Amino acid sequence: MTDITDINRPDVLAEVNAAFDAYEQALVGNDVAVLDELFWQSPLTLRYGAGENLYGYEAIQAFRQARPSAGLARTVTARQVTTFGADMAVANIEFRREGSDRIGRQSQTWVRMPEGWRVVSAHVSLMA
Amino acid sequence: MTDITDINRPDVLAEVNAAFDAYEQALVGNDVAVLDELFWQSPLTLRYGAGENLYGYEAIQAFRQARPSAGLARTVTARQVTTFGADMAVANIEFRREGSDRIGRQSQTWVRMPEGWRVVSAHVSLMA
Repeated sequence: MTDITDINRPDVLAEVNAAFDAYEQALVGNDVAVLDELFWQSPLTLRYGAGENLYGYEAIQAFRQARPSAGLARTVTARQVTTFGADMAVANIEFRREGSDRIGRQSQTWVRMPEGWRVVSAHVSLMA
Repeated sequence: MTDITDINRPDVLAEVNAAFDAYEQALVGNDVAVLDELFWQSPLTLRYGAGENLYGYEAIQAFRQARPSAGLARTVTARQVTTFGADMAVANIEFRREGSDRIGRQSQTWVRMPEGWRVVSAHVSLMA
């Protein structure tokens, strides 16, 4: 059994960093297909966005499809990915959007599903 | 080996719900000792608050100790706890503070450490 307290095992960390990089690249490019793919296809998947609370994969997918593709570019100013055992991770970043001086934060929990690493819970907000 | 895709196993869910309830009760009562206990004692623990980004257990602990104890009461208006396998969970709530009509959101990732269930990552924000 993989020990959940085996923190930042290099091979696991490399996998999650790669998945996270793919997500970030898809986000700024508004590649909705990739973003959809990287979220767990479950009614239990949840995403709290800056201005919306979305419950379930379908609600998240509908939100992405309706969102304007402009203004998604952002600069990541801090990043911390931590893995626990072989199958779970948290990924947290701070970011700034072009034309804004507010600090954004994005938190994701990733789980290794049979189909690959998937985001099971996400929270995005602007710091007060 | 416990399968990470064994979602919401009843015994695991009961444990995490109990830990989450203890945390919520400690929060509204500003029981700092319990709040500290329920966070993972690691420099990798992270908490994005409504107005601050805290990296490491010590920074989180210092923030709690400096925070005024008034005004922490809140009503939970939505709650979703999901467990993955035997050792990890996400807990998400929406809440409102007394005297405010803004919607708060709190996301936590919990891991079963040798010492018990602990929050390894947290994000609290007010919806825009």
